[in-house]
Amino acid sequence: MAEKNRKEELEQIEDRVRTIGVLTSGGDAPGMNAAIRAVVRTAIANGIRVCGIRRGYHGLLKEEIIELTARDVADTIQRGGTILQTARCQTMRTEEGQQKAAAICKKYGIDGLVVIGGDGSFAGAQKLANLGVRTIGLPGTIDLDIACTDYTIGFDTAVNTAMEAIDKVRDTSTSHERCSIIEVMGRGAGYLALWCGIANGAEKILLPEEHDYDEQSMIDDIMECKKRGKKNYIIINAEGVGDSINMAKRIEEATGIETRATILGHMQRGGSPTCKDRVYASVMGAKAVELLMEGKSNRVVGYRHGEFIDFDINEALSMKKEIPAHQYEISKTLAL
Amino acid sequence: MAEKNRKEELEQIEDRVRTIGVLTSGGDAPGMNAAIRAVVRTAIANGIRVCGIRRGYHGLLKEEIIELTARDVADTIQRGGTILQTARCQTMRTEEGQQKAAAICKKYGIDGLVVIGGDGSFAGAQKLANLGVRTIGLPGTIDLDIACTDYTIGFDTAVNTAMEAIDKVRDTSTSHERCSIIEVMGRGAGYLALWCGIANGAEKILLPEEHDYDEQSMIDDIMECKKRGKKNYIIINAEGVGDSINMAKRIEEATGIETRATILGHMQRGGSPTCKDRVYASVMGAKAVELLMEGKSNRVVGYRHGEFIDFDINEALSMKKEIPAHQYEISKTLAL
Amino acid sequence: MAEKNRKEELEQIEDRVRTIGVLTSGGDAPGMNAAIRAVVRTAIANGIRVCGIRRGYHGLLKEEIIELTARDVADTIQRGGTILQTARCQTMRTEEGQQKAAAICKKYGIDGLVVIGGDGSFAGAQKLANLGVRTIGLPGTIDLDIACTDYTIGFDTAVNTAMEAIDKVRDTSTSHERCSIIEVMGRGAGYLALWCGIANGAEKILLPEEHDYDEQSMIDDIMECKKRGKKNYIIINAEGVGDSINMAKRIEEATGIETRATILGHMQRGGSPTCKDRVYASVMGAKAVELLMEGKSNRVVGYRHGEFIDFDINEALSMKKEIPAHQYEISKTLAL
Amino acid sequence: MAEKNRKEELEQIEDRVRTIGVLTSGGDAPGMNAAIRAVVRTAIANGIRVCGIRRGYHGLLKEEIIELTARDVADTIQRGGTILQTARCQTMRTEEGQQKAAAICKKYGIDGLVVIGGDGSFAGAQKLANLGVRTIGLPGTIDLDIACTDYTIGFDTAVNTAMEAIDKVRDTSTSHERCSIIEVMGRGAGYLALWCGIANGAEKILLPEEHDYDEQSMIDDIMECKKRGKKNYIIINAEGVGDSINMAKRIEEATGIETRATILGHMQRGGSPTCKDRVYASVMGAKAVELLMEGKSNRVVGYRHGEFIDFDINEALSMKKEIPAHQYEISKTLAL
Repeated sequence: MAEKNRKEELEQIEDRVRTIGVLTSGGDAPGMNAAIRAVVRTAIANGIRVCGIRRGYHGLLKEEIIELTARDVADTIQRGGTILQTARCQTMRTEEGQQKAAAICKKYGIDGLVVIGGDGSFAGAQKLANLGVRTIGLPGTIDLDIACTDYTIGFDTAVNTAMEAIDKVRDTSTSHERCSIIEVMGRGAGYLALWCGIANGAEKILLPEEHDYDEQSMIDDIMECKKRGKKNYIIINAEGVGDSINMAKRIEEATGIETRATILGHMQRGGSPTCKDRVYASVMGAKAVELLMEGKSNRVVGYRHGEFIDFDINEALSMKKEIPAHQYEISKTLAL
Repeated sequence: MAEKNRKEELEQIEDRVRTIGVLTSGGDAPGMNAAIRAVVRTAIANGIRVCGIRRGYHGLLKEEIIELTARDVADTIQRGGTILQTARCQTMRTEEGQQKAAAICKKYGIDGLVVIGGDGSFAGAQKLANLGVRTIGLPGTIDLDIACTDYTIGFDTAVNTAMEAIDKVRDTSTSHERCSIIEVMGRGAGYLALWCGIANGAEKILLPEEHDYDEQSMIDDIMECKKRGKKNYIIINAEGVGDSINMAKRIEEATGIETRATILGHMQRGGSPTCKDRVYASVMGAKAVELLMEGKSNRVVGYRHGEFIDFDINEALSMKKEIPAHQYEISKTLAL
Repeated sequence: MAEKNRKEELEQIEDRVRTIGVLTSGGDAPGMNAAIRAVVRTAIANGIRVCGIRRGYHGLLKEEIIELTARDVADTIQRGGTILQTARCQTMRTEEGQQKAAAICKKYGIDGLVVIGGDGSFAGAQKLANLGVRTIGLPGTIDLDIACTDYTIGFDTAVNTAMEAIDKVRDTSTSHERCSIIEVMGRGAGYLALWCGIANGAEKILLPEEHDYDEQSMIDDIMECKKRGKKNYIIINAEGVGDSINMAKRIEEATGIETRATILGHMQRGGSPTCKDRVYASVMGAKAVELLMEGKSNRVVGYRHGEFIDFDINEALSMKKEIPAHQYEISKTLAL
Repeated sequence: MAEKNRKEELEQIEDRVRTIGVLTSGGDAPGMNAAIRAVVRTAIANGIRVCGIRRGYHGLLKEEIIELTARDVADTIQRGGTILQTARCQTMRTEEGQQKAAAICKKYGIDGLVVIGGDGSFAGAQKLANLGVRTIGLPGTIDLDIACTDYTIGFDTAVNTAMEAIDKVRDTSTSHERCSIIEVMGRGAGYLALWCGIANGAEKILLPEEHDYDEQSMIDDIMECKKRGKKNYIIINAEGVGDSINMAKRIEEATGIETRATILGHMQRGGSPTCKDRVYASVMGAKAVELLMEGKSNRVVGYRHGEFIDFDINEALSMKKEIPAHQYEISKTLAL
């Protein structure tokens, strides 16, 4: 019995993670630095070495790898962007690229890898897991378009950034009694648009998930609101619906009301993270290390039903997510 | 059968809510206006009249009651404070006061009442429900100290306000290599302190829930950190622990390190609400009206396990809530 | 002697301003509400009635005129936009329109008019002065393009709004090692671009006042900076230079570096005014009333050489203003 | 003639500054990093070496001196605090300390020194100038209490930070119909209090420059305002007047109106600098180097009458400055 325990212990010792690599991949998102910092400090507090990999998988393939100490991540939790930088990487989609990446991990003794990014980045982590590098994915995207989780690192900051910008547009829109179209990010997903729509009291929210929108009925509604004494008309348009500039032209022509489009653009990706993004990204970063210490691999961390949990990456990538229909209905009522 | 349906229908018609009153009570919190707006517009969209009651129960007893239209709440979702104002009210704790309040509701035809506030305010709503006024409570407090819900209106804004102020204190603390004690609100609850502690990368978080703190071990840690090359030492102190000014004096004396206390105070209660506070308060306001329309009474709306739900007020008031121990542990590791 | 004094006194009494009208005209600017509030309260404190005119000259011609009390402007100093709303008005450029406007002023007893706007608005005020309505112009525009003054109401807020947005773009630009073009407002004037350029540490500032820019030399510089190890390249492009979207395409093609354009747009016009805008607009509003009380007319208030002064409108409209060459030179050195 | 020119040239070459040291001293202020960055990059662009001296004169005496490159100050213009850190230094007030500081400058080849701080720091620079180290002072303090200049690095940021915090206090003060006392920084000078008083629409501003204040008349005014229907009463109290906590108690007792004090404290010293602070600090930093290149010494840079100028330090230290009486009068009228 004692012998058996001793053997298991040895196996565990051999098997335990000694060096964790961490990288950010895909589009950057505020809070990524909080996650990196949590990975670094949780690992070091547990006697594990940490390697920072610059520029995502691209940098991994180029061996842009540096050791990170607890001090290296000091004074970073409040910073926007990612101190490790990020990139998109086509090579990592090829088998050759994946093999090379796994080999480089082995060369540097990286036996656990934390990948902070979106679904595309998790696909890479899945391949590396198959090739023997234990990987954990953390959901980092301002778009909230990762199916397995109610929270993604960066969404809360981005949605507040967009909302504050739209508050400002509203001021001038009201002064001039204009119609304003504001295009927010989100790629194919309407979460940023829906939240801003409610939070900014928008008269209309155009979501990519709602497959078509009836421009004529919107134009009728604009005329109707004008009659009811509304001093402006705010349309939040999701990136995936697009074409805000021409939409503005058509509305102005049809209604005779001055109409302006604003495309908020890349400012939505930056800025100091909100409290929620700092706290949740920190907890997720710590959890990633805990999972690696437990010998887990090919997992992605999520937040669901009020708890931080983890899923098999394969499972996570096959999940689907929908826009909350009830909130969308509420948004219409509140635009009264 | 048709007759029975007809009868039921008639009963429902008689029973259905015709006028909803809404008031804010206790300490104000950012997002209360979003909740008021949602109550007003959801009710009106459903053909229900709305009365705004100024200054909480105090104003109810003084009959400070005005009708609210959809336009009256225009341009309020982004405003801090509460347009209905608020007050604490001792009289409402007496049976006489409660009777009078119920009578006034009847006089004004208020057959449903939405009370936005904390546990004390819900106790009043409970009494009114017993006296025949259908009541729904919405959790509004920056302290997050309502047991039945993971979310309270105002917490997200307050915690971001505090965090941003602490970021600024950190700048000057680092420049001077000081120790800084920052006292945040929260009454007896440490949620604001815990979240800020993690989000601001504080070296130490003092929570009222942790019954004692060892000042000597904190002093030792300050000296230790100085040796490790840390350029500042941030202590987040919860209001319920208190005495930040004298704590600063004792630490400076013991360590020889310049130590300053900042008590953030009432600025934490104000400011334009965050996106989360605007969206969640809107959904909760809509839900309060939906519950009244369903004939419900003596309920409080909460957010739990990722869903908006409702509890019996009696049950809600008897629940207990604890500080998340795991996050507290993480905060210690990340202070490395 | 006594008789003469008595006569003068009577004349003064007859001549003194009894009702002041106030309007905002042209593009809105943060701080206009502070100016309106100062006009209203300074007038009332001196026993003068105030009429608020909605929607600029357009509203004057439509007689959208309301009396304003000290309480009507409470809680407005911190608001963006203009509570009186604004509009552009073609009719006011015609002699007929001007005659009608003067007649309406007389009808309402408005013997002094404060016009908050830009050069176009002052031209209207000049015409009204010729027709016997005493007028004072206050410089209100985010563009700073009024020649007689170093300060215009709204510039300070707009330049901070733009700067903060660009800080955010910089975060993501650095994470991805991109080139970013950010187009700021300013019509034909480069002040917003120059200030942001310095404040955001931009590598390149394109001003409309610099008649041409050498795109090839900029492209060479981008390649050069990349070699020196710079992680991003920020170009601030003034509205008057324009065409940021196509510029981004050309640069990306020529350099192979990912290049993105952001057009900040109307968000630059809104938002709660900065402290400087609130204080200076307040002082200017008070000064406008003081000038009217002194019997002055056809004057525009400016800030020059550290002092609040006033100019004849004719003179003010004929002045020229240049971009500060020395600061432009400094911006180039600091982009090192 | 040619010989004479040649000789002058040689003298100039011998005399020209080869290495510039830069330090921040006294209390830190937002914008100091922009000034440091401008010193570094302007010097390097002109072929001059730069030494950063950490922790002010204290660090100079301890020889905490590091060479700074153009890259070392990248990504610092937007940061609060000072990357060089700062300290107060008693030793520098002694002749011995001054001699030692001059000797260390010579040892490191520092023939020009830029000192960013307040009057106390300039006194040190004056002594070093007498001992043969060419020195230029830049006015860095949030208090604006440097007589020779209308602008000091950090004031604009601090006054906006305070104003935004007071806006938030106002929200909750209005909701509860409270009287609020907010104590702002400024040491013996009332500039921060005066500006916030106007910008926040305070009912009362207490300045240290106004030697006494009549508490009874303030109490009478509070009662009077309540009667006129004002929903709150904001008192801005300058640090130099102090004792806000007890003042609140006395007012609450005398008026029966709930009264709360907030001492904003050190958060006013931190935060990302405003556009004005970044731009003006940049221009001043560049000017400091220009002055050293011209062979000037014992000068302090100021901003007056709309221009950046420089004064002899002796002269600057003997100047007096007063609170703008006219603006103080306006603040009273606007509190109507």
